Amino acid sequence: VAPESPAVLEIARLLHDSPGVEFAGVLTHAGNSYHCSSVAEIKAVAEAERCGVVQAATRIRGAGLPCPTVSAGSTPTAIHAVDLTGVTEMRPGTYVFFDLAQVGMGSCQMDDLAVSVLATVIGRSHQSNSLLVDAGSLALSSDTSASEHFPGVGYGLVCDLAGRLLPGLRVTRINQEHGYVERETPIPPNAFPIGTRLRILPNHSCITAAMFNEYQVVDVGLEIVAIWPRARGW
Amino acid sequence: VAPESPAVLEIARLLHDSPGVEFAGVLTHAGNSYHCSSVAEIKAVAEAERCGVVQAATRIRGAGLPCPTVSAGSTPTAIHAVDLTGVTEMRPGTYVFFDLAQVGMGSCQMDDLAVSVLATVIGRSHQSNSLLVDAGSLALSSDTSASEHFPGVGYGLVCDLAGRLLPGLRVTRINQEHGYVERETPIPPNAFPIGTRLRILPNHSCITAAMFNEYQVVDVGLEIVAIWPRARGW
Repeated sequence: VAPESPAVLEIARLLHDSPGVEFAGVLTHAGNSYHCSSVAEIKAVAEAERCGVVQAATRIRGAGLPCPTVSAGSTPTAIHAVDLTGVTEMRPGTYVFFDLAQVGMGSCQMDDLAVSVLATVIGRSHQSNSLLVDAGSLALSSDTSASEHFPGVGYGLVCDLAGRLLPGLRVTRINQEHGYVERETPIPPNAFPIGTRLRILPNHSCITAAMFNEYQVVDVGLEIVAIWPRARGW
Repeated sequence: VAPESPAVLEIARLLHDSPGVEFAGVLTHAGNSYHCSSVAEIKAVAEAERCGVVQAATRIRGAGLPCPTVSAGSTPTAIHAVDLTGVTEMRPGTYVFFDLAQVGMGSCQMDDLAVSVLATVIGRSHQSNSLLVDAGSLALSSDTSASEHFPGVGYGLVCDLAGRLLPGLRVTRINQEHGYVERETPIPPNAFPIGTRLRILPNHSCITAAMFNEYQVVDVGLEIVAIWPRARGW
């Protein structure tokens, strides 16, 4: 519903007047921020998001109805919004972990990424200069949305077990249970022997995290300091 | 490892001679069957799959080593193989449910599909002739592999609650939590009111089923007769 539409007031009044329903407020999500090509453009989308949702709330209040919640969303606009006057709630999702798409959009730096998929090297092909890992579309998802803003990341960039980026390595192909890790320059025969553990940084952390039932939480070291269950559903 | 390669015997002997390891046999998966353009071609791939894995087993046995398991796979070859002589195990995956990709490849008929995602109409747009449902990439996955063999299915075809196909309706777009159901011809304003439940047939049942923790089993009617937990991991 557009903020200037007559339907805003009609729907608010209908909900407010319905028995058993509490009209709590208005909500938007600036999904278009994901297709911006610059931070300046994201800032403009953030301001348009704020203006729209606040305009709807102001019109509802002007019609004599309560509108306590004014909720906006999207990680890029949450990061880059300059003014949130009138907004009472922000609902960014991937914000909690970030991912390669957000790095590509300028929402964060590589060091800010807080979730990865732990995988093991289970094979290699010297002919094709690739490592086989036990993480395919069931682990990483087949989301490649990061490529729009971060060309060349494939299905994910690759770190060592301690989380240090291994320059040039990326997951170039996946099937259901396996991923192929490759780079432009030759991988020496003794590098990454079978059994080596790698961390794959996800394209889109919301979708990748949804492939798992829990988070294994590590602090500075490699020790797992907590297991966090994952809420499933949406 | 190619069946005629010296590595077949080397690996089998190494495993057989290793303490704590039992060499059980040989295994293949005719993943190339998924890109065949006719049933005749699938039959040829099935025979090549059988010949390869049986050749490897025969060579290993000829070298004096036991090779009890001769395992082949892939749903298209499991369906269309004419001869399975020498194969002791078939491991097709999507075979248990089928999906739109398998319909497109000629492995099954629409009526054979045994899994669907139950979704609810939560909105509609008369301007764009679309229904909004509460099933997006977190429910359906973003797998669009069926389109290779079954053009126009988008993210899934749509049935009513009883499982009867609703001709022309398909999920054309998804975001994380929502799907857009559309068709070429206008959807009348009173058809599919908000709250209508629909079943979405998946492109690739392995990946779609992995988005859920359990199966709700229905028999001829609509009553849920069992809940089957899903094994996660791979």
